[in-house]
Order: sequence, then C-alpha cells, then structure tokens
Amino acid sequence: MEESCLGLLDYKTEKFVLTRNRRIGVLHRLIQLGILIYIFGWTLLAKKGYQERDTDPHVSVITKLKGVSVIRVKELGDRLWDVADYVKPPQGENVFFLVTNFIATVKQVQGVCPEHPSVPDGNCRRDSDCSEGQPVIHGNGVKTGKCAPFNTTHRTCEIFGWCPVEDATLPRKPRLAEAANFTLFIKNTVSFSRFNISRTNTLETADDSYFKSCRYDALESPYCPVFQIHDMIKAAGESFEELALWGGAISLRISWNCDLDRPPSECNPSYSFNLLDKKFNFRTASYYQDPLHRRSRSLLKLYGIRFDISVHGQAGKFSIVPTAVNLGTGAALLGAATVVCDLILLYLDTKAEFYWSEKYEEAKPPKDEAKAPTQPPKPEAS
Amino acid sequence: MEESCLGLLDYKTEKFVLTRNRRIGVLHRLIQLGILIYIFGWTLLAKKGYQERDTDPHVSVITKLKGVSVIRVKELGDRLWDVADYVKPPQGENVFFLVTNFIATVKQVQGVCPEHPSVPDGNCRRDSDCSEGQPVIHGNGVKTGKCAPFNTTHRTCEIFGWCPVEDATLPRKPRLAEAANFTLFIKNTVSFSRFNISRTNTLETADDSYFKSCRYDALESPYCPVFQIHDMIKAAGESFEELALWGGAISLRISWNCDLDRPPSECNPSYSFNLLDKKFNFRTASYYQDPLHRRSRSLLKLYGIRFDISVHGQAGKFSIVPTAVNLGTGAALLGAATVVCDLILLYLDTKAEFYWSEKYEEAKPPKDEAKAPTQPPKPEAS
Amino acid sequence: MEESCLGLLDYKTEKFVLTRNRRIGVLHRLIQLGILIYIFGWTLLAKKGYQERDTDPHVSVITKLKGVSVIRVKELGDRLWDVADYVKPPQGENVFFLVTNFIATVKQVQGVCPEHPSVPDGNCRRDSDCSEGQPVIHGNGVKTGKCAPFNTTHRTCEIFGWCPVEDATLPRKPRLAEAANFTLFIKNTVSFSRFNISRTNTLETADDSYFKSCRYDALESPYCPVFQIHDMIKAAGESFEELALWGGAISLRISWNCDLDRPPSECNPSYSFNLLDKKFNFRTASYYQDPLHRRSRSLLKLYGIRFDISVHGQAGKFSIVPTAVNLGTGAALLGAATVVCDLILLYLDTKAEFYWSEKYEEAKPPKDEAKAPTQPPKPEAS
Repeated sequence: MEESCLGLLDYKTEKFVLTRNRRIGVLHRLIQLGILIYIFGWTLLAKKGYQERDTDPHVSVITKLKGVSVIRVKELGDRLWDVADYVKPPQGENVFFLVTNFIATVKQVQGVCPEHPSVPDGNCRRDSDCSEGQPVIHGNGVKTGKCAPFNTTHRTCEIFGWCPVEDATLPRKPRLAEAANFTLFIKNTVSFSRFNISRTNTLETADDSYFKSCRYDALESPYCPVFQIHDMIKAAGESFEELALWGGAISLRISWNCDLDRPPSECNPSYSFNLLDKKFNFRTASYYQDPLHRRSRSLLKLYGIRFDISVHGQAGKFSIVPTAVNLGTGAALLGAATVVCDLILLYLDTKAEFYWSEKYEEAKPPKDEAKAPTQPPKPEAS
Repeated sequence: MEESCLGLLDYKTEKFVLTRNRRIGVLHRLIQLGILIYIFGWTLLAKKGYQERDTDPHVSVITKLKGVSVIRVKELGDRLWDVADYVKPPQGENVFFLVTNFIATVKQVQGVCPEHPSVPDGNCRRDSDCSEGQPVIHGNGVKTGKCAPFNTTHRTCEIFGWCPVEDATLPRKPRLAEAANFTLFIKNTVSFSRFNISRTNTLETADDSYFKSCRYDALESPYCPVFQIHDMIKAAGESFEELALWGGAISLRISWNCDLDRPPSECNPSYSFNLLDKKFNFRTASYYQDPLHRRSRSLLKLYGIRFDISVHGQAGKFSIVPTAVNLGTGAALLGAATVVCDLILLYLDTKAEFYWSEKYEEAKPPKDEAKAPTQPPKPEAS
Repeated sequence: MEESCLGLLDYKTEKFVLTRNRRIGVLHRLIQLGILIYIFGWTLLAKKGYQERDTDPHVSVITKLKGVSVIRVKELGDRLWDVADYVKPPQGENVFFLVTNFIATVKQVQGVCPEHPSVPDGNCRRDSDCSEGQPVIHGNGVKTGKCAPFNTTHRTCEIFGWCPVEDATLPRKPRLAEAANFTLFIKNTVSFSRFNISRTNTLETADDSYFKSCRYDALESPYCPVFQIHDMIKAAGESFEELALWGGAISLRISWNCDLDRPPSECNPSYSFNLLDKKFNFRTASYYQDPLHRRSRSLLKLYGIRFDISVHGQAGKFSIVPTAVNLGTGAALLGAATVVCDLILLYLDTKAEFYWSEKYEEAKPPKDEAKAPTQPPKPEAS
C-alpha cells in the first residue's frame, strides 16, 4: 500500500528514439517554426489573444438634425418646414425618419364619399357590386351599398370613412429637395463596464460653436460627428435624388474597436453606411376641432429616408489568463509537427523499416516460450 | 557549441511498445472510430465546423398594417378608424402598437373638479382630509383643500388638473374587434457584410398587387410576409378576443440561418411568435385650441397589442481556417483513446504486470550499485 | 496484406522511463493538482462549464410613469402636467423621455419676422448682408433680403418661416421639479426558448394595489420594480437637480443570470444605472387650425431625461456535452505538467546527463558499422 502510494511519486517520462536523421529533423523544426509563427503572429498579435475583451458596452446615441426647406404647394402657398416638422419621431433617438416628399389630404371628416379608383375592390358598375357593411379590401372605408361616380371616367363604391379619400399622386420631384443639405449631428457614448472606461465620439470642448461649423473627416476632424445628408446617402452607394422621391432606409453603423493597451486617443469610432431599402413611406394624421367640436384631420402620406444608427463596440486589455490559455493551446499544437515527420520517417524514408522496428518495441508475454521475445537478445553471432 | 546546435536538428520520435494484444487493439480502434465520427459527423457536418460565420448582420425592418374598423360609440356616433388612427407610432418600425380598445375622455380643460373615487388617496369625508397643494397619490391632480361630492354615493378631494377626470370603465368587448382581420406586411432585409451578401424576405417582383392578395405560407408562399393579426396571436398560443380586451404584447422573431455553400434560394427566414405579456395600455393626448386660444385636450387610454419584431441572422461559408482548426482539435482528441486502453492494459488485463514492466523501463542513476539496474549495459569491467 | 491489416489491430502504447526521482515526481503531482483545481474549480464550477447556455432570450419591457406636476408660467397661469403630457413617446416602451424643463413658443404662424440674434449667420447691419433666398445657417428660416431690428440693440436678417422665432431663454430652475418624485414601473419578461422557460420581474399577485405602494429593494421587495426618478439618477452617480435643468440620458440595465439547476426563485434580475449623457433636448410641435383653416403651431424645446432600458439575460442548465468537452480539454492540459518537469529532469537535475541518455535512445541505421551503436546488442552468454 505504502509502496504503491510512494509509487505515485515516481516520475515517469516518455522514452524517445534519437535518430541522427537530420533531414527529417530540419523539416520538423521548420514545421514547428511555422506553428510558432501562427501562435505568436496570428493568435497572439493579429487576433490579440493576449487580451481579455468586453464586447457588450452600454451605448447611447443622441441625434440632432438641422436645416430648413421651403415647400411650394399650389393650394397652400409657400410653407417652411423646420426640424420640428420633418423629423419623426422628434426625440433624437438612434432611429428616425426624415421627410423628403409627401401627399397631403387636408380637411378630412368622417362621412360618405366614393372610394378611390386605384383600389381594385372599390370599383363597381352598379349598386349590387357593393355589399353594404363590407370593408373595402386594402381600401379606405366600409361600403354603404351604393355605387357612385368618382369622376367623369370612374364609378366606385361609396364608403363611410374619412372623406375625401386620399388622391394618390406623388409629385415628380421630392418636395423637400433642400433636405440634401441638412446636417445630422450624432453624439455617441460607449461605456465598457468591465474596464470601467467610457469613450465619446465628440471633441471635449466648451466651445459650442465648434459643432456648428465643422464636418466629419476621418483624418482632419474625426471628433466632429456632423454629416451632411447627401454625403451619407452617397457613402451608402445611392444618390439623394433617387432616394428622396420614393423614400428609403439607410443603416449607419458606428464601430468601436479599442485597444486599451494603447493611448486612449487611438480609440476612435469608424462610420459605415449601408443602403437597406428603396421605397419607404407611412401615413400619419393631425387632428383638429372646430368651435362646434367637430373633428377633422389632415392625412399625410410621408415619403422619406429612415436612418437606423447601430453601435458595435469592443475593447481589449492585456490579461494573464487569456494569454496563458492561448500560449498553452498553441504549445499543444507543436506536437502536431511530429505527426507529419513520423509519417515520413516510418513510411517514406529509405531506412523506414529500421526506424519502424526501433520505434515499436515488440513485447510478448512470457508464457509464449516458443516464440522468442524480441526484447533483448537477438543473440548475435559470437 | 556546434554539436549542441546540430543536436537540435536530430529528429526524436516517441518510442512505443508494440503489444500483440488484439483485444485491446480492437477496442482502441473502435474508440478512435467513435471519435472520428464525432469529429466529422458532429463538429464538421452537423455544427458546420468547416465554415466561418457572420452572426451580426445589418438588419432593417419595415412594417405596414392594413385594414379599417368601424367603432360604435354612443356619444359620438359611428367612427371609422384607419391605419393613421390605430397604429402608434405610425413610422412602420419594428416595434408598434395596434389599438384594440380604449377609454376616451374628450374635452378636458385645466380647472378644478372632484378626483375619481377609484383612487384611494382621493377619497374623503371632510375638507380636512384633503391637504391643499398635495398631489393625489396615483391620482389625476393636486388637491385644492376641499372635499366635494363626485356623484350621489361618493365624496372625493377636489383637485386642480385636467377636468373632468378619466372615468375608468372599459367596454366589455374590444371596440376595434375588426382588428383581428387586419393584415401586417413585414419587409425584412439582412446584410452579411463579411460575405458581402444581402437577402430579403419578399419576392423579387415588379407586381405590386402580389402582396395585396397573398398570405404567408411556409411551403407555398414563403416570400409573402403578409400575416393576419389573429393568425399571429393564435401562433403565439393566445386568442385575439382574450388579448384585445385588456391588451398584450407579442414577440415576432425572424430567424435567418443561411448556408452560403448552398443555393441562395434555400436561405429563407423562419417566423416564430411568442406571447410576452397580457394586459398592456398607455395614455396619450391630442391637444386643441378654441378661437380664444384656450387649450383643451382629448385623453385616450389605449389598450391594444404591442408587436416586437426582432431579427436574428447568421450565415456560414466554407473557409480553410476554421476547417483546419477543427480538424486539428479533433485529431488531438484521438489521443484520448489511448488513455482508456492504457488503463485496461495496465490494470485489468491478465498480463497487466508484464505490460506494466514493459511500458515503464526503470532507470537508476549509476551511483546506486547495490540495486542492479534493469537496463543492462554500461557493461562493467568484467 | 492480411498481416498489415491485422497489424492495425496490434495495440501500441507509449514507452516510459520510470525514474525513482521523487523530488521531480512530487513537483509533477503538484503541478497536476494545480491543473485539476483549475479544471474543476475554475472551468467547471466558477465558469459553470458543465452547463449549456442560452444567451439570447426574447425580452419584453413595458414601462409606466406615474405622477403629476404643477407648472407656474407667468403668461399662461398654472398648468398641471400629467403622464400624457410629460412622457414622449407615450407607448411605454424601453426607451422614453421624461420632460423636466422646456421653452415654449406658442402661436407660431408662417410669415416673416426678424431672425434671433443668437444665430451668428442672422446678424446684419444693412440689407446687403442678407442674401434673399438663402437659408440662415443653423437658423429658423430663409432670408428675405431685408435687415430689420430684432430689438433696441440688435438688427437681424428678416426671415420667412414660423414666426415669431424661438426666444431661447431657459428658466434657471427646472419647471417640472416635481418629476424627482415620479415613479417608474418596469415590467420585464425574459423567455429562454432553449429551455422553454419564462421569468418575469414582478410578483405574481392578483392584488393590483401591491405595485401602487411598494418600492424596489434588492433584499426586501425584489419583485417590486417600482423606482423613484431621483433614486435612479442618484444610483447613476448624478443628482436630479443637475440633470433636470439641461437634461441628460440614463441607461438602466436589467441583468438576468439564471442557473436553472437551482430553484426558480433564485433567478432574479439585478438593476444597474449608468449616466450616459448630460444635456439632452429636442424640439416638437403641436398643430392647430383656426375656424378660417389657418394653421398655427406651438413649438416646444423640451429638456429632460431620456431613459434607455436594456435587458441582458443568460440561463444555464446542466448538459452532458459541454461537461464532456470541458473535462476532455482539461485532461489534455494535464500533459503540460510533464513539459516543465522534463526540463528540470534533463537540464537542471544533478544526474541530468544520465536521464538524458536514458530518455533518448540513439538509433543508428545498420550500414554504419564503423560507429558502434550505443544501444547493445546485449551481449549474450558467449
């Protein structure tokens, strides 16, 4: 018992065959050198395997658009739209919509009127084509049972709903063409809680007017996150004119990739733009009351560009644990070199059979006395 | 010095004991076969270990609801609600709220009136129960110091605030019962920047009317992402009637799992629905001005279903680096087979002691002359 | 052929040199013990390597603010703001804005008026300083070409836009000072689809009034997620007074870290607060129509606190596959102990040269008869 316990403390080391085969030896060292280059060059240096990482920062995005645009509408005269008019929603979040074109149907009231001819289910020839009480499929109201003339050429089912219905003719040029020159200011803060460090993408300055005159430039003004609308759309591979007519969606990705072992000033975000969709619109309404408390509404079908700002950040800092783990894993790979070299030694080398018999010592249990064990003797001719 | 440097180039290979124990040999090969099946079957094929993955695509979601509903309200007559009325917010984002029921308190103006009896802190018997200037806890205004009759049965503190206060009686059936038949169109685009590839969940067609008549079916029309409201709620395990009365929240998950080594047409999203909450409501107001610029508001307590659409996507494509790494890691596992077989050979086999002595060659340093070394030579002077 | 096939079934085991070096043996066992402690203590127990994890739950967040505040505005008299007035947007999502201060410009109509002197590009001395048709940079409208007096001391370009322009004087104390006492109720549900389990952060109770009187306490009432605004700001390291004047942004992180091998009652969320930004404001407008359908608007520049609620959750449950993989990887690490001990044995020990020659058996191919092989024959009785 004591013998076997003490036996656990006897150190056992693997036995090796030392060949003087320098050709395979050189190959072996070259393969090991390649593996070391992979470990240090790729895993540790390029992929920063010596750092622990925080890939899930708290992020905050605040946006602010600036600019005005004059709209010329025949029925309404000139109107100026400012930021409270063209940004939906107005709260300056990371997703917002910039109006570039619209169809306005003002002074709608609840009542009966003919459906629009562009709605397939609304077309009719006689009253029996319109089932009373049925909603018009993809239409604007509920059928009353009558078939009425919409204009001189079309007859449509009379409906109960907001009247008059929307007359869907989009202007051939975007109404807010000036929006191309509007500027977007994005304030982004990332907090890496694992390292207790925060970074922001704006210059630390008390001078408020800095941001009123600068533009973003990756080299000259990397801390001025002010972008012009048409520059962003161009960076996404589209032109403002094409996108502003029918609307669209642009994704703006802010990427932080910070190496906290280097000076903080090298930790800057990069901005990339991606076109997500062409054609984007939605309907919204403003409600009014006359002195007799009769409700009316203005229906706006808004076309424009939706901006989706997403922030991705990661930070890394030297730490002993990932370094040790990656070094250990890499060291284990060094053993793979012998697999290749063994194959060459045992099967391809000119003296392969000799090396095979040296490497694999046959062991035969003692009861087989007929076959003489290969371990020691081979009694030489003496 | 030169000897030791050249010594580095001598190839050393591990020495093995070749037993003729075929029983353990067969077991060894079977275990290795099992490990190979694990490596190729599970790690490489099932888990696609030969691919590099992009798990963080740009995503964009655009939603559009369609449908109309007639509300019958005693005081107000029939009213039709269309998409500009029942979707909040209207911008067609991935999170939106569909109104199914509501309590309307119209024509509120700033003034004094009795608090509602349902508010515990608002109830009183005499003026001294109401501290002037104190806000009513969970109430609608600030106490004026008077205790006034609310109706024939209750007396409550008079408050300053928007009057009259909301009278909290929800209709017993959802007012927008028609909302069950409304349809939701979801346009979703995912962009895998690592592979420079984009996929969208809608059919590439110039025919706008396709989406006006189709419904989603996983087999027949997988590229028509048009869902009916009550189908979605049923898929989440609830019924529209139960959810529409008090409101709720449904999560819609769009999952993309694309193998880019296969044809692009096999890269389709799957949709899953999950009930997140029952009971959901919030208050919103519309503001009006009379010709004398006196402000009034309509307070709406809206009950309805909030839809939370989230997109998860990953794409994989064959790449030599992960393939090599997984093969290498798997090859290292092959060595584990010998651990089991060694245990059997050295401790359980009938000739275990013999094998033990063959495997572990004892080495005694030369100064111990009393115990004869098991390793013969250093032939002493005889 | 048959011989070599059967040869595959011969079991080969590595040969070891058994030293009686107990010093290095003890060191070897100590290093192995350290590695075992790392495997079991760190990888399996501390990092829960025996569990499979779900790190991507469905989450839903519903928020509700409660409270009222009386504003004293000289021109408008007392006004009470309730939740429908001070929360933007009102839908109770995970991101919302609480108004604490504002600048109101009521009764704006489209027309001409002088620009505000605070806008640099709007200042002028004579008409030629104002180019007709040019938008005022960072201003409120488009220049008409005239230079007009704004007040007794300043002359500015006349503009076409919403008039009168906003007069940017912020009150020196936050108007909604009462907002410090408002309460925020957060209902959060997480669904781990991999384990088919849902958890919510609120007490399962039929008593609606529980949430009207409780406050969150990590020990006493962990299932009452009702927070007071100034407590949350204090937890983020700021005071309400400082943040309420110019606005700011607070991030609230709800973290779930559930061990599903333990009772469900131990799976609770933790709340952490982080200040993201100081200074936050945006502009929004309400639109009105007089009986002659002339449109006017009220412009509000809102200052306040934006709350960003994010939910992070992961759940783990025992599973055989990750356990086996981690045990296997750990077992492979045990081999690393021999690397260190071999170095000591072969280079630092007193009998290092002896051990070196025992470990590395030289093999010379038979044709080299001039150099006698160091490895026997083992001269037989001759």
